Order: sequence, then structure tokens, then C-alpha cells
Amino acid sequence: MELIQYFASFLGVALLGIILVGFLFRKIVTIKDSNPKATHIADLIRKGAMTFLKKEYSILAVVIAVVFIGLFFITNLITALAYVFGALSSMLAGFIGMRAATRANLATTLAAKKSGERAAFLIALYGGAIMGFVVASLGLIGLGTLFYLFVGSQTLDFIQVIGCYGLGASSIALFARVGGGIFTKAADVGADLVGKVEMGIPEDDPRNPAVIADLVGDCVGDTAGMGADIFESYVGATIAAIALAFTSYSGRLNYIALPLVLITIGLFSSILGLASISLFKGKLNKMLHNSTYVAIIFFLGGTFVYLKYAEIDLKLFGSIVLGALAGVVIGLITDYYTNGKPVIKLAETSSSGAATNLIYGLSIGFESVVLPVCSLAMVIFISFKFFGGLYGVALAAVSMLATVGITMSVDAYGPIADNAGGISEMSGFGPGVRKITDKLDSLGNMTAALGKGFAIGSAALTALALFAAFCEKANIPSLNLLDPTIIAGLFIGGTMPFLMASMTMKSVSKAAWKMVIEVRRQFKTIKGLIEGKAEADYNRCIEISTNAALVEMLLPGIITVCAPIFIKYAFGSVGNLALGGFLAGATLTGVVMALTMANAGGAWDNAKKYIEAGNLGGKGSDAHKAAVIGDTVGDPFKDTSGPSLNILIKLMAIISLLLATL
Amino acid sequence: MELIQYFASFLGVALLGIILVGFLFRKIVTIKDSNPKATHIADLIRKGAMTFLKKEYSILAVVIAVVFIGLFFITNLITALAYVFGALSSMLAGFIGMRAATRANLATTLAAKKSGERAAFLIALYGGAIMGFVVASLGLIGLGTLFYLFVGSQTLDFIQVIGCYGLGASSIALFARVGGGIFTKAADVGADLVGKVEMGIPEDDPRNPAVIADLVGDCVGDTAGMGADIFESYVGATIAAIALAFTSYSGRLNYIALPLVLITIGLFSSILGLASISLFKGKLNKMLHNSTYVAIIFFLGGTFVYLKYAEIDLKLFGSIVLGALAGVVIGLITDYYTNGKPVIKLAETSSSGAATNLIYGLSIGFESVVLPVCSLAMVIFISFKFFGGLYGVALAAVSMLATVGITMSVDAYGPIADNAGGISEMSGFGPGVRKITDKLDSLGNMTAALGKGFAIGSAALTALALFAAFCEKANIPSLNLLDPTIIAGLFIGGTMPFLMASMTMKSVSKAAWKMVIEVRRQFKTIKGLIEGKAEADYNRCIEISTNAALVEMLLPGIITVCAPIFIKYAFGSVGNLALGGFLAGATLTGVVMALTMANAGGAWDNAKKYIEAGNLGGKGSDAHKAAVIGDTVGDPFKDTSGPSLNILIKLMAIISLLLATL
Repeated sequence: MELIQYFASFLGVALLGIILVGFLFRKIVTIKDSNPKATHIADLIRKGAMTFLKKEYSILAVVIAVVFIGLFFITNLITALAYVFGALSSMLAGFIGMRAATRANLATTLAAKKSGERAAFLIALYGGAIMGFVVASLGLIGLGTLFYLFVGSQTLDFIQVIGCYGLGASSIALFARVGGGIFTKAADVGADLVGKVEMGIPEDDPRNPAVIADLVGDCVGDTAGMGADIFESYVGATIAAIALAFTSYSGRLNYIALPLVLITIGLFSSILGLASISLFKGKLNKMLHNSTYVAIIFFLGGTFVYLKYAEIDLKLFGSIVLGALAGVVIGLITDYYTNGKPVIKLAETSSSGAATNLIYGLSIGFESVVLPVCSLAMVIFISFKFFGGLYGVALAAVSMLATVGITMSVDAYGPIADNAGGISEMSGFGPGVRKITDKLDSLGNMTAALGKGFAIGSAALTALALFAAFCEKANIPSLNLLDPTIIAGLFIGGTMPFLMASMTMKSVSKAAWKMVIEVRRQFKTIKGLIEGKAEADYNRCIEISTNAALVEMLLPGIITVCAPIFIKYAFGSVGNLALGGFLAGATLTGVVMALTMANAGGAWDNAKKYIEAGNLGGKGSDAHKAAVIGDTVGDPFKDTSGPSLNILIKLMAIISLLLATL
Repeated sequence: MELIQYFASFLGVALLGIILVGFLFRKIVTIKDSNPKATHIADLIRKGAMTFLKKEYSILAVVIAVVFIGLFFITNLITALAYVFGALSSMLAGFIGMRAATRANLATTLAAKKSGERAAFLIALYGGAIMGFVVASLGLIGLGTLFYLFVGSQTLDFIQVIGCYGLGASSIALFARVGGGIFTKAADVGADLVGKVEMGIPEDDPRNPAVIADLVGDCVGDTAGMGADIFESYVGATIAAIALAFTSYSGRLNYIALPLVLITIGLFSSILGLASISLFKGKLNKMLHNSTYVAIIFFLGGTFVYLKYAEIDLKLFGSIVLGALAGVVIGLITDYYTNGKPVIKLAETSSSGAATNLIYGLSIGFESVVLPVCSLAMVIFISFKFFGGLYGVALAAVSMLATVGITMSVDAYGPIADNAGGISEMSGFGPGVRKITDKLDSLGNMTAALGKGFAIGSAALTALALFAAFCEKANIPSLNLLDPTIIAGLFIGGTMPFLMASMTMKSVSKAAWKMVIEVRRQFKTIKGLIEGKAEADYNRCIEISTNAALVEMLLPGIITVCAPIFIKYAFGSVGNLALGGFLAGATLTGVVMALTMANAGGAWDNAKKYIEAGNLGGKGSDAHKAAVIGDTVGDPFKDTSGPSLNILIKLMAIISLLLATL
């Protein structure tokens, strides 16, 4: 195939994705209702989310401008523009995804009221799918265009150009994930501590001043944050694979374009997967799983045909299969730890108090690390050894992310269902509707845990692929662990995730504290609030979360960006070696910590829900109180610190790759 | 110097150490009193501790016999006997240390009553010093003898012989540390959950059936467990350094004997350090610190003179200084995180509930990783690069441990002071005595935290030195992180500490639960217990802790031993490479997790104590309740899971070294 043919297929499929997004958007906005209360609440959520985005983006504009100027002087105009392009693509994806989510939440509630469970489920899923397909399509358009324009460039460093595109995506991801994570958990913890624990009012009660901020947080953290995270992995893995092929298969377009072809086939297969959903009957979670499996089967089949056609070594297919399978396996393991037997045992330990609940929950988190990481290790080992070397590992990462259209749809479904439940509760739609949204929400909890497992697995492989690309670009033939520079780098790198986790946990703690004080203040000073006669000042709480998130994300962001630069230059002539060890150490501890935090958090959340479903004494029992404490600790684990680590390891790797191109 | 001269100096100084131990023992046993209640309680503690030791040792006898037979067939009689020798040395050290501790606790209480604070302080310190000097002397005798007999052997693999001695020490350490850790925390958590939280009776109240088990646990876990852990580090680091010199400086006795000379000088300097303590006036904690500093100064001075005299490259002195300093620096950092500002902040967050206390405590633990690990990284980097290569790193480890006589004295002082407090409370000695023992106890908390930091730092350096010795013995010239075998090994190894942490946390949780049920049963069925008219069945509680500890330590033990063997053989022809990556990964995550757990646990403990001292509402306040929950989570962190990780990384490294000799 010629370059132009590649470009045409990339753009063609990406356009299909965009058309699908438009179609899904129409599906959602046609569901209307004149219920003024629900509309009012949905408006509050939408406005809150948009206010946050606007503020965040205005800070980002400054960051982007500064980095642009820096890159312009260090590299050149085109490369600096590629950075802006990457950043804007990620921001656009976040904006569209968020708009969709903040419309789909209301639409889901209304669909549940009008047409029942299945219709509501589909609307929530469509809302999530908008995020999924926007991410996949915009990423493909961006990288495809840069590929078409610059892969043959004689004057520009092509790897630098796409690396800067990736850096753009990463800088947005950092702010969206860390900031979003702090926002959502400050609101959530604040709402719970005063509302549930001190005042004894139920979840999602409109009297709670932080309740809207909490719902906004779901959109900001779980939708926009997750979307930016996955977008970063998606483009990062593709960039790493292209970079490796660019050196190892120099001049062979079929190999260099392969990563892009994979995500093109993956996007097309995801469309088929989503379309297939109406064919399945039965349980909702089966429908979700099946649509993913359909997409993967089409993806693997299509890839096999393409490899034969393009005369590419079929060995690479082995790596591609492994990558796709690893995503599924990690998802299933995550499901076990956050939805299976361990959760019930965790709920049971809650009967003897918060301390035993916490001890047991942490032990679940620790244990949950073993199988996913060993699976990843096997994927790396087999991909490399038997299939395709470092390029094989990078292709496994791309393959895991290729069907992101459908996997992200499933992930982004969760917060929409959660929001829908909140809106129906606050609008007083009654137990019939609430029952439906509760069911959708509990399904969403499962998909959220799966999504986190997937995000971590793909971040790990992406970081490793970027690490490999860095070593190749920096001309490092060997990173000898018996070299003190590398072992020192490994150890220093290994502390970075702990520093990040500590900072983000503290940020949540600080921000939540501010929220607690504000919520308490409102209960004290707003007359008639607790009786339900006056409305709370929701905006004040949204503002607190917004400001806290934007202030608190700066320091972790600066440290993440500066650490690899510091290591490279502090170690002088052996800087690249130290940086190699540093990345390996950070990736290792980052992955194990991210898994611990995500899965412990998921288990605590679901153990609490299990008790709330009426087991072990149900709501209000001592077991429930203990489980609420566990869940509150788990909140920043799974929604702030854990996800931040994905960004940390990828961003440091992409910065290192760029440093190597200078 | 000739071989016989070396041997004579090793034995001479070791005998001095043994004489000191005898002298200290006499100091302790001469303090007698006819208070029958105190004697009764001390008897119960001593019997409980000895029962545990007896049971543990009878299981260990089987383990030792099995390993002995295995080694006899794989290697030869002498090597297999060296294993038994190592195991018996560690057991003997544990036995003597424990006997001393269970006598010194009573003696300290009595001294407090009779002669006041300073006398009581000295008795407790002398009790701890017995453990410290027994460890140092027995290790020196064991390794010195094997060195004398076999260093020139033509028929035996000398490294294999001393490696098996180290394996013997390690197998005891595993059982003592893991089993002891489970014992002590099952008792502690069980006693607290029912006694303090449910029944509202104070700490160390004789009505609490688990209170004696709790005090036994302090001896079993914090004295015997810590002693075996440090003994393992002490001999492990020395073995690794000898092994490296044996290859790198083949035939040059002055270099090969240097590690043993260092610990000889260290032991002698420790004696001077302990002797110097009566010279210092002023605050007790200053006295402790100063005695350590005195020992280190003598050690460094003596070493410098020796290096000149023995015509050894003075560059190595740089590594030795760094190792000694790193121990102090890690101690100071640990002190900051477990006694400084962060603890007061942690206490303050307790006011908003258990969840915020936990979030903040975890964030302290995470942050506390950064500086110590970066210090270790710098020690490794500078020692290797500028001073002595891999041998330099190993010497730094030996140097950190050389003054173990005095550092371990200070560590082992803590549980004795803790016990003394318990005995005085239970014997009704009144507030005057209690005030003294409380002061000694709070000083002990600080030294315990320092001891843990030191144990982790030395374990990390020891594991690394053993790792280096393994690579040299296995003829691995380079461990390339870009090789998939090694990266797979790194990732799999990185999960091992999480598996270990998970298993030990669950064990504590299970064992504590059994204890809770038993304590509740006694309060229900023993009439007059809560009124203080009947005595609790303390032995039943001791039995529960003992059995739980012995059963629960088996699986972690088996996994630790089998994992490196499995990795080596599963990876076939690249087994040694995979094992190298595996050890590096396990050491990295093991160290960061051990620091997190030790320091978070220490911070929670002291935050609770800060509140109990009357701050933030004092005992019984909401802040206190929250802090108690944090402390209960921190207990298995700092006393079971965290310390187990030290053993894990060292034991896996020594097994790998032995595998390489086969």
C-alpha cells in the first residue's frame, strides 16, 4: 500500500467513528421531558462540569502556550505545533465526552421512567460510547495526519513530531486525571462525611450541599479524566510502536504503518461490537461483555487478514493476540477481586469494626497485584522472545488499546448510570425508577473496576513500550542492572509513585476537609435546609472542589515533568542510563501500586454496597458504618491516587523519549 | 596477618562480647523483690514466651532436619552441618535474648520502684544489650570459625559453606519474624478490640484475658523476631561481601577477611559505646543517641587504622563511611516521620474521623519512602562508582551492620520498657512507678521506629549485596533490562512483597478474630472477671496466638523458599537471568513497601499516643477513637507485614546465591 492509501483508510474509518458519535448524540438529545426538577438538577450538573472544564482549560491554555514557546525554541515550529495539536485533540475529546455524559445522565433517567430498564441501559451505554469513539477517532485522525505529512520528512525528526503530539495528550491527561480525581473525591468524601455520617441523610439527598459537586465529580473524574488517560495510552502506545518500527524496520512502510493500521481495524471492529449489542438478549452485563468480545474477534480476524495481505511477518500476530487477551484477562481478574468472593469476605470482616475491614481490604489490594502483573510479565516475555522483540511488546500494547472504542464505551457508561441514579433520587421519581437506575449503577460499578484494570494494564504496557522506544532512540543497547547508575536510577524511580500517591492523597484530604467545613456551615446557617424547605448553595461546593483540584494538581504535575529531566542532567554523562533505570523502577512500582489502590478501592466500595443491599444487618448497622469508613479510604485510592499513577509512568516515559530526540 | 591471627582476633573480641553479656545478665538478675503479684505476672509472661519458643523450635527442628538431609545429598556433610550451625546460632541468640528480655522487664519495673528513672532506664537498656551483643558475638564466632576452617579448602566450595550458614540463620529469621509478628499482633489487636473498644477498660488492664499474650507478643515479635532479622542481615551482609572478595580479590586474605574484621572492630566499638553511656548526663534519648555515635566514631577510626596497617586500598574506606552514615540518616528520617511534625498533623486529622486519619496516615507512609530510598540509591551509586565497585556496596552494608551490638541494644530496649509498663500497671504499683515506665516506654517507641528503619535499610543493602554475590557466582556479567527475561523477572519479583504482605495481613486478621472471640467468651463466662474478682484464663489466649502464628507462618515460608527455585527452573536456560531480575524487582518493591508499612504504622501509633497524652480531647474523644482505628491498622503494618518483607528479600537472595553454587 502507498502512503496515501494508508492515510485514506485511516481517515475513512475515523470519519465513520465521528459519524457514529453524531448519530449517538442525536439518540440522546431526542429524549426529552418536561419534568422541571430533573431538568434543573441536570442543568446544575452540566453547568458545574462545564465551569470546571472552562477553568481547567484556561489554566491549560497557559501551560500549552509556555510549552509551545519552549518547544519552538528547542525544536521547530512544526514540532511545537504537533504538541498543541495533541493537547487540543485531547481537550476536544474531553469536552465532547463530558457534554455527552452530562446529557446522557438525564436522558437515562427519563428513559428509565418512560420505557424501562433496557432503554435506559442503552442510552447510558450510548452516552459512554460517545466518549469511547471520540477518543478512538480523534487519536486516529491526529496520528494518521502527522504520519501522512511527516513520516517521509527529510528535515524533521518524525519521532520527535509524533512524540510531541503524545506529550500534548499527556499534559492534558495529567491535569484531567489528577485534577479530576481530586475534584471528585473531595466532593464525594466531603458529602459522605457530613451528609451520611454526621447528619444521617441518605446518599444523593438533595439537602446535602455537596451532592451536586459529587455528581459533577463523577463526570469530571470518571468520564473526562478516564477519557484523557485512555487517550494518552492510545496515542502513546501507537507512538512507541511506530518509533520502534521506524528504527528497526527503517524504510519499510508496511511495518511502520502497522500500529496505525491496528487501531484503524480496532476502531472499525469496535463499531461492529457496539452495533452487535442489540443482537444480544439476556443479562445486561453479558450484553456488555459480548459486545467487547465481538469487537476483539473482528479485530483479530481483520488483523490476520491484513498481515497476510501486507506481507508482514505473521509471528507478530502472536504478540497482537497476546495483547488483546491480556486486556480481557486483567479485566476478569479485576472483576474477581472487586466483585467476587473477596468482597463478600470483606463485608463480613466489617462486622468486627473498621480496623479489620481496612486490614482485610488492604490485603485484597495487595493480593490483587500478583496475577495481573505476572500476566503482563508473561505477555512481555512471550511477545518479545517468540514473536517480535521490543516491537512485539509495543504491538501488544497497541493491540490491547485498539478496541478502545468499545472498551471505553463500557467504562464511561458507569458514571452516567451513577449520575442517572442521583438525578432520579433528587427529582423524587420514586422507587420504580430508582430500582432501574440502581441496577444500572451497580453494573456500572463493575464496569468501572474493569475499566480501571484495563487502564492500568494498558498504561503499564504503554509505559514499557515508550521505555523501549526511549532506549532505542537514546542508543542504549543494554541497561545493565549490575551498573550502579542503573540500580540507583531504578531505586529513585521506584519512589516516584509513592511520592505521587502521597501528594494526591493529601490533596484529597485537604480538599475534603474544606468541603466538610462548607457543608457543615450550610447546614448551620441555611434555615430550613435540613427540613428540605430551602435549597442548598450547590455552587459554593462545586467552586471549592474546582479550586482545590486546580491548585492541588500543580505540584504533582511539575514534579512529574521535572523528575526525568532532573535525573538525566544530574547524572551527567550517564544520564540516559540512569533515566532508563528510573523509568523501569517507576513503571514497576507504579503498576503494582495502581493495581493495589484500584482494586482495594473497588472491593471496599462493593463491600459497602453489598451491606447496603441488606446483608449483614444492612444500612445503619455497625458493619455498615465500618464499611463506609473503608469505602471513604478507598475513594482517593481508586479515583485519585491510583489513576494518577497511570499518568505518571506514561508521562515520564514520553518526556524521556523526547529528551532522547534532542 | 596470617589466618590464625585473624581467627584469634575474631574469637578474642567475640569472647569479650560474651563476657559482657554474662556481666549484664548478672546486673539484671540481682534486682529482686518479693512483690508476689509482679513476680506472678512476670512468670506468666516468661512462661508464655518460652512456651511459644519451645513450640516454634520443635517445628523448626523438623524443618532443619529436612533441609539438612536435602543439603547433605545435594552438597556434602560439612556444608549441611554449616546450615545447622547457622540455624542453631540464630536460635541460641533468640533464646538468650528472650530470656534476658523476660527477666529485664520485671527488673526494670522493680528498679523504677526502688531507685527511680535512671536506674530503670539502664536495666532496660542492659536487657536489650544482651540481645544486641549475643547477636554480634555469635555471628562473629560462627562466621569466623567457618572462615578459619574452610577459606583455604581445596575440596569444599567455601562460598557454599558460609552461604548455608546464612541460610540457616535465614530460615530461623523467617519463622521468628513472621510467626512472631503474627503472634504479637493477634494478641495486641484482639486485646484492643474487645478490651479497649468494646469493654472500655484501659490498656494493660489485668482483667483483659489477652493482656499477657500481648506482653508475651512484645518479647516474641519485637525482641526475638527483630533479633533474628538483624542476625540474618548481619551474617548475610558479611557473607555477601566475603563472596564478592573471594572472586574479585582471589587469594588476597586481607581483602577476603576484611568484612569479618569490620564486624570485629564494630563489636569492640559497640562495647565502648555501651560503656560510654554512664559518662553522659542529660536526657535519656540523648544518652542513647550518643552511645551509638561513640560506637560509630570508634568503628570508623579503628577501621581506618586497620586499612592502613593491612595495606588495603583506602578508597574502600569511603564505602564504609557511607554505609555507617546511611544507617544514621535513615534513622533520623524515620524519626521525623514517626515522631515529628507529620505525627501531630496526623493526630489533628483524627478529629474528622477514622477515614481521614487513615488517608493521612497512608500518605505519610508513602511519602516516607522517598528520602531513605534515595539515600540508599546514593550510597549504592557512590560506593560502587567512586570507591569499591560491587564489593564497595557490600562493605557499605557490612559497615551499617557492624555496630549492631549497640544499635540492637537500643532497639531491644523498647519492648522491655513496654513490658515493664505493663507489669507495673497490672501489679498496681501506682502512678509514680507508672510515670517512669511510661516515659521509658515512649522513648522505646521512638527507638523501635528507629530500629525498624535500620532493619529495613540494612536488609535492603544486604539483599543487594547478596544479589551482587549471586550474579558474580552465577557468572552473570550483565543483567540487561531490555532483555525480556529480565524485565519479566523484575515484574514477577515485584509482586512477591505484595503477596507476602497480603498473606501476613490476612493471617493477623484471622488470628485476631479468634482472639476476639476467645476474649469475649471469657468476659461472658468467667464470673467476676470484669469486676476484677476472678483471674482471666491468660494461657488460653497465649495458646491461640501461638497456634495461629505457627500455622499461619508456614505458607508464606514455603512460598518464599520455593519462589526463587521455581523461577530459576521455570525459565530454563535463562533461569539465572530471570532470577536476577526477580531479585531486583522483589528488593525494590520490598524496600518501599517495608518503609511505607513501618513508618505509617509508627506514625499512627504515636499519633494515638499524642492524643492519649491529653491533646485534642485526649482519651475517649472522637479523635482518640479514630486514632485507635488507625493504630490498629498500623499494628500489622509495622510489626508483621512490614518486617516480614525484610526477611523475604534477604532469604530469596541467599537461596539464589546457593542455587548458583550448585
